[in-house]
Amino acid sequence: MEIELRLKIEDLFARYVHCLDDDRLEEWPEFFVEEGRYRVTTAENLERNLPLPIIYADSRAMMRDRVAALRQANIYEPQRYRHTVSSLLINRVDAGSVRAVSNFHVVRVMQTGDSMLFATGRYLDRVRIEGEGGLPQFEERVVVLDSRAIDTLLAIPL
Amino acid sequence: MEIELRLKIEDLFARYVHCLDDDRLEEWPEFFVEEGRYRVTTAENLERNLPLPIIYADSRAMMRDRVAALRQANIYEPQRYRHTVSSLLINRVDAGSVRAVSNFHVVRVMQTGDSMLFATGRYLDRVRIEGEGGLPQFEERVVVLDSRAIDTLLAIPL
Amino acid sequence: MEIELRLKIEDLFARYVHCLDDDRLEEWPEFFVEEGRYRVTTAENLERNLPLPIIYADSRAMMRDRVAALRQANIYEPQRYRHTVSSLLINRVDAGSVRAVSNFHVVRVMQTGDSMLFATGRYLDRVRIEGEGGLPQFEERVVVLDSRAIDTLLAIPL
Repeated sequence: MEIELRLKIEDLFARYVHCLDDDRLEEWPEFFVEEGRYRVTTAENLERNLPLPIIYADSRAMMRDRVAALRQANIYEPQRYRHTVSSLLINRVDAGSVRAVSNFHVVRVMQTGDSMLFATGRYLDRVRIEGEGGLPQFEERVVVLDSRAIDTLLAIPL
Repeated sequence: MEIELRLKIEDLFARYVHCLDDDRLEEWPEFFVEEGRYRVTTAENLERNLPLPIIYADSRAMMRDRVAALRQANIYEPQRYRHTVSSLLINRVDAGSVRAVSNFHVVRVMQTGDSMLFATGRYLDRVRIEGEGGLPQFEERVVVLDSRAIDTLLAIPL
Repeated sequence: MEIELRLKIEDLFARYVHCLDDDRLEEWPEFFVEEGRYRVTTAENLERNLPLPIIYADSRAMMRDRVAALRQANIYEPQRYRHTVSSLLINRVDAGSVRAVSNFHVVRVMQTGDSMLFATGRYLDRVRIEGEGGLPQFEERVVVLDSRAIDTLLAIPL
């Protein structure tokens, strides 16, 4: 049972990553429950309990708006991410949900071919095990960046 | 059953990576079925459906030739790779084989000690579940590089 | 059974990584058996069989001393690591222990916000399956760095 649970969470994480790295941003909100929360912050802000996330959404509707804005405004240079995610730890919260921690390295690849290590950090998640369609979904995903020195034009969700 | 399948594929991927990173290139063709295909291309070429892979082999014999050439010609500077691979997704094709997608970051380490993030991208695989010796083997491994700006002396398989 | 074993080892590795990346260094020795050995060396030294590790400890007591020294001397610039670990291979040694190999990429983040790919390499481990509290513990962890060109002020364990 615990093994199946673990593999379901790993599968969720892998689908999430490929959705972003394939630039299928319109599908991104579907990884969350309807009232799901998404936040990008820095380790420093988290430690000091500063309430200023870099990106914030507290519903799928808000996430959809964000994606629509990204597509329409098109302010950012064409770019892609490539994630690696590892070191997943899972803790049960209750019968219906788990907390998870994992590490990520994200490389950003520009259309010119330049690529760079763009962001590193942790995902702090709360996952509903049986979301829509029986698949797990994020109740909350907090992206904790290690460095505050990140491109302020940060646009694509991480 | 699906859990065992997943772990078999993960094991294949890990053995493949350590084979390359340990510079045991002579063993590399054995990860493929006899008529296996190996291709390195770029995301751009794949999207535009351009047929020009950077590296191409459509049999183990061709892969062995490539390794022999690398060993004899010895044109490249001594170097090693270090892969991290993650975000594996598996889909059954039929009773005997699966398709898989995964992400990689590869660092290249020169003999001088210099190291750099060398390549990032996706593996698009078709795997025969019960290959020789009962172990899974690649029917096809397509290495899709994120950036076309890669060292054209690319030599060691990825 | 083998699946459970694999997941226990993966869990050990993930807890180890988060302990270091969260700067909970005081907990680090507890990942080892009492007489556990920890060694950081380079691929070059390992191949030439040179006996000079960069860091060495052959008991938890020695590891605790090292952490205490790090905390008191405080000679190094504030910094954090962010690991990704992948490509785990496990081999049984006997009923009570396994050998494991895995790959890592470690990014170092300075308090200034600068971050860099700091170290890549392999973990070569011997793990006691049922350590204290029923959890697996390292009998030996050898960190094999790919490059000798590493910051000689290497301080935090990897």
